Order: sequence, then C-alpha cells, then structure tokens
Amino acid sequence: MRIPRILALVLAGGKGSRLESLTQDQPKPTLPIGGTYTLIDIALSNLAHSHIRDVWMVEQFQPHKLNLYIDNGRPWDLDRTHGGLVVTPPFEGGEGEGFAQGNADSLVRQLDAMREFAPEDVLVLSADHLYNLNFLDVYDTHLQHGADLTMVTTHQDGDASRYGVVEIGPERRITSFEYKPEGAADAYVTTEIFLYRAEALFEALEELLEKNGQLSDYGDELIPHFLAERTVVSHDLGGYWMDLGTLQSYWTTNLQLIDGEAIDLHRPDWPLWSAQPQRLPAFLGGSAQVHRAFISAGAEVHGTVVHSVVGIDCRIEEGAEVRDSLLLDGVVVEAGVRLRNCIVAPGARVTAGPDRGGEGVVTLIGHDGTIDKRVPFDDAAPLPTLS
Amino acid sequence: MRIPRILALVLAGGKGSRLESLTQDQPKPTLPIGGTYTLIDIALSNLAHSHIRDVWMVEQFQPHKLNLYIDNGRPWDLDRTHGGLVVTPPFEGGEGEGFAQGNADSLVRQLDAMREFAPEDVLVLSADHLYNLNFLDVYDTHLQHGADLTMVTTHQDGDASRYGVVEIGPERRITSFEYKPEGAADAYVTTEIFLYRAEALFEALEELLEKNGQLSDYGDELIPHFLAERTVVSHDLGGYWMDLGTLQSYWTTNLQLIDGEAIDLHRPDWPLWSAQPQRLPAFLGGSAQVHRAFISAGAEVHGTVVHSVVGIDCRIEEGAEVRDSLLLDGVVVEAGVRLRNCIVAPGARVTAGPDRGGEGVVTLIGHDGTIDKRVPFDDAAPLPTLS
Amino acid sequence: MRIPRILALVLAGGKGSRLESLTQDQPKPTLPIGGTYTLIDIALSNLAHSHIRDVWMVEQFQPHKLNLYIDNGRPWDLDRTHGGLVVTPPFEGGEGEGFAQGNADSLVRQLDAMREFAPEDVLVLSADHLYNLNFLDVYDTHLQHGADLTMVTTHQDGDASRYGVVEIGPERRITSFEYKPEGAADAYVTTEIFLYRAEALFEALEELLEKNGQLSDYGDELIPHFLAERTVVSHDLGGYWMDLGTLQSYWTTNLQLIDGEAIDLHRPDWPLWSAQPQRLPAFLGGSAQVHRAFISAGAEVHGTVVHSVVGIDCRIEEGAEVRDSLLLDGVVVEAGVRLRNCIVAPGARVTAGPDRGGEGVVTLIGHDGTIDKRVPFDDAAPLPTLS
Amino acid sequence: MRIPRILALVLAGGKGSRLESLTQDQPKPTLPIGGTYTLIDIALSNLAHSHIRDVWMVEQFQPHKLNLYIDNGRPWDLDRTHGGLVVTPPFEGGEGEGFAQGNADSLVRQLDAMREFAPEDVLVLSADHLYNLNFLDVYDTHLQHGADLTMVTTHQDGDASRYGVVEIGPERRITSFEYKPEGAADAYVTTEIFLYRAEALFEALEELLEKNGQLSDYGDELIPHFLAERTVVSHDLGGYWMDLGTLQSYWTTNLQLIDGEAIDLHRPDWPLWSAQPQRLPAFLGGSAQVHRAFISAGAEVHGTVVHSVVGIDCRIEEGAEVRDSLLLDGVVVEAGVRLRNCIVAPGARVTAGPDRGGEGVVTLIGHDGTIDKRVPFDDAAPLPTLS
Repeated sequence: MRIPRILALVLAGGKGSRLESLTQDQPKPTLPIGGTYTLIDIALSNLAHSHIRDVWMVEQFQPHKLNLYIDNGRPWDLDRTHGGLVVTPPFEGGEGEGFAQGNADSLVRQLDAMREFAPEDVLVLSADHLYNLNFLDVYDTHLQHGADLTMVTTHQDGDASRYGVVEIGPERRITSFEYKPEGAADAYVTTEIFLYRAEALFEALEELLEKNGQLSDYGDELIPHFLAERTVVSHDLGGYWMDLGTLQSYWTTNLQLIDGEAIDLHRPDWPLWSAQPQRLPAFLGGSAQVHRAFISAGAEVHGTVVHSVVGIDCRIEEGAEVRDSLLLDGVVVEAGVRLRNCIVAPGARVTAGPDRGGEGVVTLIGHDGTIDKRVPFDDAAPLPTLS
Repeated sequence: MRIPRILALVLAGGKGSRLESLTQDQPKPTLPIGGTYTLIDIALSNLAHSHIRDVWMVEQFQPHKLNLYIDNGRPWDLDRTHGGLVVTPPFEGGEGEGFAQGNADSLVRQLDAMREFAPEDVLVLSADHLYNLNFLDVYDTHLQHGADLTMVTTHQDGDASRYGVVEIGPERRITSFEYKPEGAADAYVTTEIFLYRAEALFEALEELLEKNGQLSDYGDELIPHFLAERTVVSHDLGGYWMDLGTLQSYWTTNLQLIDGEAIDLHRPDWPLWSAQPQRLPAFLGGSAQVHRAFISAGAEVHGTVVHSVVGIDCRIEEGAEVRDSLLLDGVVVEAGVRLRNCIVAPGARVTAGPDRGGEGVVTLIGHDGTIDKRVPFDDAAPLPTLS
Repeated sequence: MRIPRILALVLAGGKGSRLESLTQDQPKPTLPIGGTYTLIDIALSNLAHSHIRDVWMVEQFQPHKLNLYIDNGRPWDLDRTHGGLVVTPPFEGGEGEGFAQGNADSLVRQLDAMREFAPEDVLVLSADHLYNLNFLDVYDTHLQHGADLTMVTTHQDGDASRYGVVEIGPERRITSFEYKPEGAADAYVTTEIFLYRAEALFEALEELLEKNGQLSDYGDELIPHFLAERTVVSHDLGGYWMDLGTLQSYWTTNLQLIDGEAIDLHRPDWPLWSAQPQRLPAFLGGSAQVHRAFISAGAEVHGTVVHSVVGIDCRIEEGAEVRDSLLLDGVVVEAGVRLRNCIVAPGARVTAGPDRGGEGVVTLIGHDGTIDKRVPFDDAAPLPTLS
Repeated sequence: MRIPRILALVLAGGKGSRLESLTQDQPKPTLPIGGTYTLIDIALSNLAHSHIRDVWMVEQFQPHKLNLYIDNGRPWDLDRTHGGLVVTPPFEGGEGEGFAQGNADSLVRQLDAMREFAPEDVLVLSADHLYNLNFLDVYDTHLQHGADLTMVTTHQDGDASRYGVVEIGPERRITSFEYKPEGAADAYVTTEIFLYRAEALFEALEELLEKNGQLSDYGDELIPHFLAERTVVSHDLGGYWMDLGTLQSYWTTNLQLIDGEAIDLHRPDWPLWSAQPQRLPAFLGGSAQVHRAFISAGAEVHGTVVHSVVGIDCRIEEGAEVRDSLLLDGVVVEAGVRLRNCIVAPGARVTAGPDRGGEGVVTLIGHDGTIDKRVPFDDAAPLPTLS
C-alpha cells in the first residue's frame, strides 16, 4: 500500500462576506461550531485522519486570529519536523506577488512553490463546510479512473443555485459544470473539494495565465478548462455535507448538532480534532433552567436556555431567556433579555430591551450587542427543527 | 536576569494507597480535578509557568495511563527539541537498577543520570497537591540565603499530623523537622516541594548510601541529614495548598472549586494547562435540573444534579439525583439512584438500589458501581460547605 | 484506501551483550551508524514513512540515554497530540509487573495496555538491524493471505546460524521455524519484524501464559505456537538487511556505508530521519590527510584518516593514523597512534603506544582507550572491502 | 524572579538587496552561515535561550523558503501549545492591510494584533546580524533605567556610516541618533535590537501615524520621536557583532568562523540552535586535499579546498581548487575550476574557464554559475585573514 505525495491547499483567505459582521474582523475559518469546535478543524481533521501530511494554509483576509488558532498545526499533529502545516500568505517579490483576486488566482500565486514541492497530486479544499471524508478514498477513485481532476460531489435536495452544479455521466465522468446557475434544484453539486493531478493543474494554470493574463474564481476558467481538455470524474461524498457560509446554514447546522441531525463531531474513529480552549466545566447556577442545550466549558448559566448552543465563556444571567439560538464565545446575556432564533457575535453583551429575534427569521446580533441583520427563513435551504 | 539550570524531578511513581480503589489501576497523578483537569497538570503547569524546561517524570507504579496522558509534554510545551519532559522509569543494568523503596530511593536511582545532566539545582516535586507557585521565587529565596536546601512550607491550620512539620528560625532557617508527628496541629509543614543545590544533594545521597546501604523516604534520612549538615531554609508558599492524597481531601477540594474556595484553575496569568479531552459541550436534556454544579464536556444530564462535579462523558439519567458528589469520567448514574457525599470511580455504572452516601461520611463507589469504602468525616481536616 | 489501526512495539530493552563494552552503559539502539545517525533511527524512520502513528518503545536495560535521544519522538514526527511515541518501561503493580525475561515476556507485560489500545494488528520490531521497508506492504501481504502472523524474511547467504531459520511453502506459508540452528547456511531467516493479527497475538500470549506460567524469547514458545495453530506467512524483505548485533557486523556495515555497499541512508523518498546533533561542519586542519572517509560534524582532523568513519566531535591529532576503522562520538586519537580495523568506544582517548588493531581481526577499544576485545574475522559473515 | 510578558518581533520581510542575486529568490534570513547554520537561527536561538516565548515573524518578501525552514518553530522549541512562533504576513482587510513600506511601517501593520496580545514590552529584532545576547539582560537595563526604549548598541571600530550612530550620555541615556551619517567612524551604533515599553511604542506609532499618515523606516520618524519625547537608554552588547548584510561582511564572517575569530556557534551554554539538514557526514574522496576548511554534511570533496567553507551537498571535483571562498548549499565545482575570494550561490554549477575571483575583490558567482558581481575590498570594514 502506497500513500502518494499529496499536497493539500486549504483556501482560508476569503472574506466570507455572506456572514455579515461575524467575519468583519475575524476570518471565517475561525468561527466556532458546536460550541467548542472551530470551522477550520473540519478540513484539518479530515486531512489528518487521511494521513495527508503536507498542508498549506492559503491566507489573505486578516489571518492573524487564524494563525494564532492553528497553533503551528499541533492540534492535528501537523506540526512536523518534516513537512506538515505551512502558512502561505500573500507576499512581495517574484511570481505570485500581491493579493489574489479569486480562489483560482490563489493557486496561481503558489504555483512556483508547488512546483518546487513536486507533489503527485494537489488537493484543494475550502474551510467552510461540514463533512467527514477520507481523502484517500477520493484518491482511489482518482487513480482508478485515471482522472486529471476528481471533484467530490454531493446531491443537493432543494435549492442548488448557490453551488457549482455538475452532471455525471458514465464512468463517473463529469460532463457539465455550471457555477451557481439560477433556479437549479435537486442536483449534484461540487463540495469544493478538488483533487488535481499535479502536472495537469500546473499546466492548466500556466496555459490560462498565458491566455487570460490573470485567473479569478475556479468556476470561471479553471474548471471549464479541465472539463474541456481533461478527464474529470466525480467522487460521491455520500454523507452529511453542509455549506456553512450563510447565516441560516451556519445557525441551522449548529442547532442540528444538538439534535444529532448533523454528523457526530466526536465519532470515535474519525473525531473532529480541535484546539478547544481549556476551561473549567460549564457551571450552572442555582437558578439555571437548561433544556436540550449545549453549554460550553467556561460558560456560566443562571437563566433559562432552551435548544441552544452556548459558547465558551458565555454568561447567561438570571432572568434571561435564550431559545433556538447560537451564542458564540464570551457572550453575556443580561437579565430581562429574550433571544429567539438568534446568532450572537463573540463578546457581545446583550442588554435588556425588546425581545430579539422572532419566528421565521434568523437574527444576527453583532459585537456591539445590537441587531446587525435579520434574514427571513429561506425554505428552499435546510432549517432546524425548532423548540 | 539569569535563569539557572534547574532540573525538576516530579515524583509520580507512588501507589497512592490512601485513595483506595481509585488508584488501584491508575496512577494518582492521572486522577481528575475540577471535572476536566488532571492532578499532574498542577506540577507541570507550575513548572512551565516558571520557565523550567527540564522535567523528569519519575515513574514506577503502573505508569502507562500517565505516559499516555502526558503526551510527550505537549500540553505544557515541554515537548522539546532540547531538553523538556523526559520519562525516568525503573530500569535494569548499572547503578540504580530495580524498583525504588521510597521517594529518597527514587532520587538515588536517578543519581548517575542527574550527575550527567549537571544541573545547578534540583527541584523535587510531588504530584498530588493543589497550589500555584512560581518556582523562580523559590530560587530567589534559595540564592539569597545561600541555601543547600530550600523547603517550600505552608501553615497548616488544624491537624498537621499527616505532614512533615518544621520549625522556622531567624533568617528563614529551618531548625527542626518531624515527619508525621502524632498530635501536631497549627504548624508549618512541608509542601513536598524541595529545591536542592545539586552538588549538596548528590553528595548527601552518596554519603547516606554509603552509610546506610539504601535510602527510603526523604523524611527518614535525607532531610534529617540536610538539617544536621547543611543550610536549610524555608520559602513560604503563601496561598492555597491542599494535599489531595485522601478521599476526604480529594472530594473536599473538588467541591471547593465549585464554590470558588480553592484556587482559580483558569487564572489568566497562571492557568492550569491541561490535556483536556476534546468533546462536545455538556448536554442538558429536557428533564435536567442542575444547580451549582460543574458539568464537564461530553457529559449528558437528564436527572438532578446539585452542588457536584460531573466528569467527562458521564451520563445522569432522568430520575437520578446527585448531590455534593464528585463523579469521575464516564460514570453512569441510572434512574432511581440517589448519591450524596460520594466519589464515584471512573466508568462506574451505578444502578438503582438503596441511597448511596450520607451525612458525615465520604462514600467511595468503585469501578464496579458498588460501595468500596465509607470514610467518616475527619473534622480536623478541611471539609466543603455542603448543599 | 484504508490504513489499519496498527500498534508498533519496538523492542529496545535488551542488553546487547554481543557488542561487549559498547553497550555496557548505553542501550544498543543509541549506538551511532554512519557517523551521525543512530540505530533507533532505522525502526522509527521506517515506521514514520509507513504512516504508522502509534509506536511503543519497550524499554528495560538502561533506557535513559535512549529516552534523551528519542526526544519525545520529534525527529520522526511521532510527537503527537493524538497517539505517537509512548515509552513502555518496566513497572510495579498489576499484571505485567517487574522485569521481562525475554522478548516474548516483554509482550506479555504490555498485554493489558495493548488490549486497552485495541489495535487491529501489532507490529513487533527490533532496533538493531539496517533495512528499508514499507510496513504497509507487509500489511498488504498479511491481509491478502489472511495471516495471523506475517514474518518478514530475507535470504541469508552464508552462515545463518545466528538467526531464526524458516522454510516457506506454497502461498507464502511458513512451514517450519528453527531458532539459531547450528550449521544453517544459505537459508531464509526472520528479520525480527513480525506483524500479528492483534486478537491472535493476545490469545496466544494468554494461552501460553496459562500453560507455561511465563514466556521467554519469541523463538521458544510464541513462534512455534503460531506455526502449530495459526496461519503464518512470509513477506520477503527484498533488499539490504544487516543484523548489527555483533562487533564484526556493526563495523562491516559502517565501512560498507562509505563504499555505497549498504543502503542509501539519505534516499530522497525514504531518508533515515534522525536527531543528528547540531555542530559546526567537519574541520580539516592544515596537516590533515583524509581519503575515502566520512568525517562527521563537530570533528576535527589534523592527522591521517583512510577508509574510516570518524564520529561527531572526534579529534584526530597530527601524526595519528586511522585506517579501516570506526570511531564513535568524541574519540580523541593522539599523535603517534595507529589504528587499523578498530572500533573505538565513545569518548575514548587513545594515546600513543603500540599499533592498535591488525589484519584479520576487529579490535574494540573501550571507553578507557585500551583494547577491550579482539574478534578474529568470521568469514562466513559479511566483511567490508578493506583499504 | 519574574520574567515579563515580552513580545518579540523579528523583522524578516526585507529584500536584502545589498546581497545581490543571493537574495533574489530567497529571503535573507534563510542564507547559510558557517556551512550548516542559517541566519535566522541567530535571532531565534538568542530568543529561545532568553526564555522569550512569543515570537512573531514579520514577513513580506518571498517568505515561502523561510516558512519551510522555520518549521513551525520546532528547532528552537518555539512550537507551542500556548504562544510560540507565529507568522505575521501581509494581509487584506482592516487596519494594517497591504504591504509595508519600511520597518517602522511593518510595526504599524501589526499594531492591532500587538494591542490584542497586550505585552508589557516589545522586542524588535533584525535577522541579519551575528551576536550572542541574553535579552533578559537588556530587560534588566530597561527596567533599572525606567526606559521607554532600550537600544542595544555596540562600538564600531572604523567606518560606522552604514549604521545608526548614537551618543550615550550619563545614566546610559542616548542623547543623539543619526541614521547612516556620512563619514561616521569609531562610534557607538545601534545593533538593530530595540526593546520598547509596549504602551510607549503603541502610542508613538499612533501619534506618528496621525501626524504623518504613514511611517517608513525606524530611523526616519520612530527613533527620533522617542529621543525627543521619551526615555531612551543604551544597553551595551559587549561582544562580537557583525552585520551580515553586505557581500564583504557575509563572506568575512564565514571565513572568520573557520579561524575562530567570530563567535563560537556551538558554545555549550548558548549554542546556535538550527534546523540543520540531516545528511551523511562530509565525504572526502581518494584525491581530496583539504586544509583549514569546513566541509559540511552531505558534501563530497575530491579536489583541493583551502581556508573555505563548503556547504551542504556541495561537490568539489578532482582537479578543482577552492581557496578563501564560501560555497553555499549544493554547489558543484568542476574539474579545472579555480576559485579565490568567492561566494558561490546555492545550487550553482561552476564549470571550467578562467579563474574566478582574485585578490582584493569579493566575487559573487550567481545561481547560473557565472560571475554576478565583483566588489573591491572595503578596507574600512572588517576583512578576514586570508590564506
């Protein structure tokens, strides 16, 4: 059994603007999930469990919190004397200088470094989806079908218009690809996990660069080029997959975790490894009323919490009520506050006033404790079972 | 500012027999404290915060769980290319061969290795006390008084007969030492933290070895020898210190942590670093009633918990009631069970039957879920405020 | 592609008495090879390149230098938050207490810990052979033949009487095994690399323990038991393999490395990872005459060196001559000394006097700089091409 | 003894243009020194030995090779679960977005992150000087004099016009500072090691930013501001210090290391820690003639080498001659080539032709093996003793 020389690039540089003020000062991969886990844990745990040792973190937007969090790769055993986690930020000098204008452009800027690393295959991942996947299984598909590019796909029930939609023909060949096609529904979509034969990727980037001068997002030139010129196959993910890039999907997934409707983050043979902060256990005071909820370490609850995720170091005061909500780290909910269907930004102090949140709407409370955004439910996309 | 070459030896090899079946199959340093921390965290965190880089873990009794837990020193940044945490187990061949017959004998068996390491000072610690201490402050006392041995001491209100009792004269000189003197009370005692001038220690061990053939516990020959021949001074600990070696003290300290009456394990400038297991947050079900309690990550509560510490992965079923108790990892408390003033061993499943525990007694429930030991309160030793 | 849960046990506890005074105060796995590498590098590098993450170092004889050297596993990326290198020394308490009486007994003493780890397969290795091997290839053989035990074998030209000699039948089945049979030659022998199906190993150990009360070396009861009761197959190593356990073989291999007749220790895709000491480069003085020799970092040469390996921090003075010899770390060869076919123990200072070493003999110079042993060439075993 | 919360920033982002093509494709901090060490080792070793745990690597110019080399901080035990080495590259989004225009501007771009880290003091270092220094001694000076800024200074014999020249008054107060003043000689100069009181630094950066819109190099606005407004003192380095930023100084220092005229890179109590590549020892072939030279691991010498540093993996063929030269990694010198006073760029293959280099000139041979630059000796700056 031979494990190939795979180089993984985790695209962690995007702004994540659909998450509004949540990602204004912190990169999306550092947002919490399930109370004490972090989005970037997902890509890095799947990589570690897949025995992939060389992981480059492609950064651009405000990476400092991410660099502190990833801790040189230690939580995922990617801190290594040989290879391991390497940060690949924007730089000055030589080919690739400057800031990327899209995720394919991100790859172009690492082209020289990738060539020097000389991998057999390049695995490109995003950092804002929830799934379990053994990437060596993807490699098996890739090898067996002699693919230049293997796209991991999943069937999307309902609205598929936010995704790259593919058609899969015989021999798992991908025969068409449309990026965010209006009106698409009940379709196979790309999970933003791509395994490229290294030489095919490098040639494609060079060819497109020569032709177009610059690349933008992978859906614009790179994938169409592979579909036109190369062998592209599909590997079916075959399990839970959720894009966490919108307020509704982020909130939904967190509540699904309470109800056991998402994946098991602590699956014995495939756990989500994490740099969970070390704290005293959740403390429930004399007046706490908590039902069907996750209370994270370091949190203190004196009020009422129902069907919610309470993050690290939160404090719910006596007389506060939190329902169907997601409280990120360090949130304080003062006496008299009532939250429903809310996401509360890290460190926000929510003080008494009118009720926040309501039926049929996801309400984002920003870092300053006031309402930042109200998003009506999109019924074509997943929603949790509410209390 | 110059930090000396200090070698720290953590004595982690003892059987801990006063903790009964809790330490039958697991070394005392691996017992939990505060739900998600572990006893050995205390020595290693204090060492790490004190910038002491060379730490030898002196092992003997069933060290495997300890070796798994300490994880090559990573949680305390003692995994190092140069020095760091080194395990020093029993061995065959050469001086020091075989098993130690006491804690001074433990030192003898490392004598060759210590000489080769050539430290300036040797810091000897136990692994079953709770305290915060900057060992560099101890070094300052040591240096300032030209000590051959600096003993860290603390004033013990009430019964002191379980400790090494010292008298402190002018210039912090220790003028007498008695090991576990019957009837001692309200006295200064040793905290089992010793800073030796390395050469003085090595000479003493050799001299005593030559004279006696073998050493046993430090209170028997080593400390008396230093008092008779060398300069021994006291450094006052000056804060919370608790010996966790008895069922009552172990239970008391854990309940004190709930009430904020022990030290702050998460003090921002001196946190207890730990290899806390990664789990989903504490989950409280629809029927949970929890008040004044720590609920650890991975635990699930459906019953009633009052003024207790619930460990990692515990499950309290609906209809169970836990009060003033300490549940270690993975305990299941079934419906109908009522626990009071109990310690429950890791992994125990406690099934319905008569109430367990009661007033004025600490009750140990063993790994098999049945009562292992009942210890009447010792009023001369610390007790928690009960619910 | 699925990598199984393999637990590797490296048997590093033996006394290595055939190496005479070289292993009197230091365990065999810490001896140098090729000047700046160390024997234990071989097992650990092969394991690391084979993506095996869980490695237990079974220790007994004077392990301190080994524990310092292995540095918590860092040089092989076996320092891990999850699993990695774990030291398994002798211990007190419970099953397995005390010192092992042979390498099968070593396994018995880890039986409880292995059961708790719950591997699918157990890989047992020695630490005193030179070879390159992908253990996942061994696993493929193991799986394909449904083996309970896969022994890695190699064909031994010439004398095979120091080894476990096997006969291999159809389907790679091992049909007989003899441990160190007198007069054996030109035969297949075991390389002391064994892959056991975990459950089969555990059952065998328990059964033999019950029957015999105790186990000794694997050749005595364990392998015969497997041959009698289970499916045992051979995996052919298919490349260079050298037992480094005798003075002649240890010396021969080191000289073969100079001549490119052993394996390439720096093979780009399978390098020997090591904790090589950091030093200034080899320094050659104004009077140095060095030909066909390895001069290690930190060494200083002012004299004559021909076809020899000069270890770290050695000093060859002007007027000294070293030929066909192996100098371990920190050796000083004074003016006027002439060495031939010698192994010089670490730290030895060799002072002028009669020539040391000579034709047809391997001469061991001990730590005190005097001749410790003279071993006439065994022509049935490998020898280097001399200068 | 209390070690303060110091944040160290290593300025590793500059282009190093005075080193010509040596730094065209690789950042200066990754250049070798002494054959097998690397420039960045100096700052990181001094930091590690000074017990400073929080080190930010400020990057900009082509940092990829640097990020690979620093290996998440492992060689310096700066890979940490808590703090340690953190890469701080250019980024997009928020304050500090974009590329820095000078070393003071570099600090501005980390201002938000530094404020969040909340250090007591900020230590700012360059990465292109050779020296040994305990930064805690600098802190002692800083504390004792109540300084807002402590500049580490050294006396520069001869030409000082390349440096920041200071005058030191009573109480170690720095009374004037001139940046690269023409004609300066025999003066105290800054070593580019600055210890700032954190709050004073942050206020200064904000004030200057408000006043000037942007900052450039520290000599332009920042140091003058401190001199005008704050308490600035000098800490005398008191030992060898060499700026390695010019071809002559880089070459000189390397040759001085051979002759023991620079610092001892392997000083037992203050060694240069490094990520030295692992290789077989230096190999000298049958025809090698090597005198007064460092031959690095992995190098092979068949020709003549005199008073030179031969880097890792170099190959000097029979009939080649290398004198008073510095060969970086992987250089091949073919038969018939004669080098004198040369620096040869990594990987260059130097083929036969006219002699390269000559008296009174440092000659740089570029990556393509041809002469890139000839720099006549600057007699006002240090020069080595030639062969």
